[in-house]
Amino acid sequence: MILSEFSLIDDYIATSATMRPDVCVGIGDDCAVLEVPTGKSLAVSMDTLVAGRHFIDGADAVNLGHKALAVNLSDLAAMGAEPAWATLSLTMPEADVLWLQAFMQGFLALADRFGVQLVGGDTTRGPLSITVQIHGFVDPCQMMRRDGAQPGDLIYVTGSLGDAGLALRLQQAGKLDIVHHQQLLQRLDSPAPRITEGMQLASIATAAIDLSDGLVGDLGHIVRQSNCGATIELQRLPCSTAVKAAIAESNEWSLPLSSGDDYELCFTVPAEKQQQLQQLAAILDCPLTRIGVIEQKSGIRCVTAEGAGIDVKSGYDHFR
Amino acid sequence: MILSEFSLIDDYIATSATMRPDVCVGIGDDCAVLEVPTGKSLAVSMDTLVAGRHFIDGADAVNLGHKALAVNLSDLAAMGAEPAWATLSLTMPEADVLWLQAFMQGFLALADRFGVQLVGGDTTRGPLSITVQIHGFVDPCQMMRRDGAQPGDLIYVTGSLGDAGLALRLQQAGKLDIVHHQQLLQRLDSPAPRITEGMQLASIATAAIDLSDGLVGDLGHIVRQSNCGATIELQRLPCSTAVKAAIAESNEWSLPLSSGDDYELCFTVPAEKQQQLQQLAAILDCPLTRIGVIEQKSGIRCVTAEGAGIDVKSGYDHFR
Repeated sequence: MILSEFSLIDDYIATSATMRPDVCVGIGDDCAVLEVPTGKSLAVSMDTLVAGRHFIDGADAVNLGHKALAVNLSDLAAMGAEPAWATLSLTMPEADVLWLQAFMQGFLALADRFGVQLVGGDTTRGPLSITVQIHGFVDPCQMMRRDGAQPGDLIYVTGSLGDAGLALRLQQAGKLDIVHHQQLLQRLDSPAPRITEGMQLASIATAAIDLSDGLVGDLGHIVRQSNCGATIELQRLPCSTAVKAAIAESNEWSLPLSSGDDYELCFTVPAEKQQQLQQLAAILDCPLTRIGVIEQKSGIRCVTAEGAGIDVKSGYDHFR
Repeated sequence: MILSEFSLIDDYIATSATMRPDVCVGIGDDCAVLEVPTGKSLAVSMDTLVAGRHFIDGADAVNLGHKALAVNLSDLAAMGAEPAWATLSLTMPEADVLWLQAFMQGFLALADRFGVQLVGGDTTRGPLSITVQIHGFVDPCQMMRRDGAQPGDLIYVTGSLGDAGLALRLQQAGKLDIVHHQQLLQRLDSPAPRITEGMQLASIATAAIDLSDGLVGDLGHIVRQSNCGATIELQRLPCSTAVKAAIAESNEWSLPLSSGDDYELCFTVPAEKQQQLQQLAAILDCPLTRIGVIEQKSGIRCVTAEGAGIDVKSGYDHFR
């Protein structure tokens, strides 16, 4: 069933359940018109997912709708921002109603969970590609930039590392068992952006980034932009039982260090704020784990429990 | 020469000449952080251009950079908004430095002309596709929506209609002479968004839209959303000598009525504000031409000088 662009927008896309009072004009005019609250700054991030690069052809449409929004929400989380609005540009080879319904189901379910209203965008025909821009609010005095880390700050991550990378590795090796590896696969296909955590951390952390390309690559942005370096203690890295087993079997640490798609937050905290952080950790439904320390010396060093250094691969690069 | 994603961003994209004081955080963090002026609302619009659909493979990269931003600026113009920031997601089959330099040259030259700063986005590998989101400011009491037209309002357009459509028609027929048809081609490849005109018209017009899909299709959005109809007087349509000759030769009006890509504004004005509009027209460097009238009866009617009605084709639809 092939639909026209206009009825696509009317029937399947402009169906956001969340209706925010700060949206003056939503979908259906030349622009969306939006109200940023007094005293807040606007935080925006844009990400594109391309078929065959960010997801396999034939990927589940519900998961894809979820993930397209989740990766953008994760950028807001890394800034400590509160989500508000999204725009969506969807390029599709054909107007497949069932696919579009499933995609929007995944997209809007996550949007509703975080009070996000879809306010505009574009639909066009072409190779499958999804661009989302997310908009949120930050307190300009409490946002987490990448360039605020100081030598002596402690490095933390939310949640656990390497699950999404392990799911991808098993999938590519044809060894993924959908029932047995359900939890791993969910980390890859349907990541949970750390919005609540980011908003709570904004008043404590000196710097933050979300882990989309892998810990070493992403922490690398923090240390370069903050003009410092870091040491990571490998035995502290929070990993699931499955990832721990894979590390033990392969005798290498690339899963937690350099596989991407975890969408956890990596952030730095002054040593004197550790107690405040522990109080926060007690009320959050997500582990916060100290994994290392910021140092004056540039570069990132990874050390084993015995103090030995190891080589690490860096992040993922679309043009290498 | 193949580059990495990160050096692409650093070397060729993050080179906006315009540096605005309302940009707290620009390219290089998880989010851009931006300040909307007190008393203003944020207007946003997102458009995607796909190779083979919106432009031919091998299209001039400078023009493409210009056009990708121009079509978005045109949406701001139709709302009466003042441009501020852009985000750009660029999907490219390979990181071709010469192409990218040319593309950014076209994009940033137009951005600088309107004081727009590029504040973020994404680069990824895949079939060539360009998504731009533009951000501007509107006075919430003076923005031009599509749904504000009233029976009796006079319908106007800026500039002239059909030049871009004629250039495309000649191009597709292999009859385009780059020297002889230079002006026509410029209208197609390098449209001038009517930003100044839109901002000035915001206090006078009751409704507006930009002409991307053709006059009848786009005016159709105004009359449907305003719950009314319209009559267009064909002999009033402002057309260049070349378009007038093409109409005379073909004996049909599709060029000014339904060819797209003009990026002029179509707007409606209460009859009692005609004098105010004429005062404005005198100071604008762009003709404003009355082409018809809004009526209670739904639908769009086109009449010749003799009062005869003609059939019209509607707008362009990506999924038909």
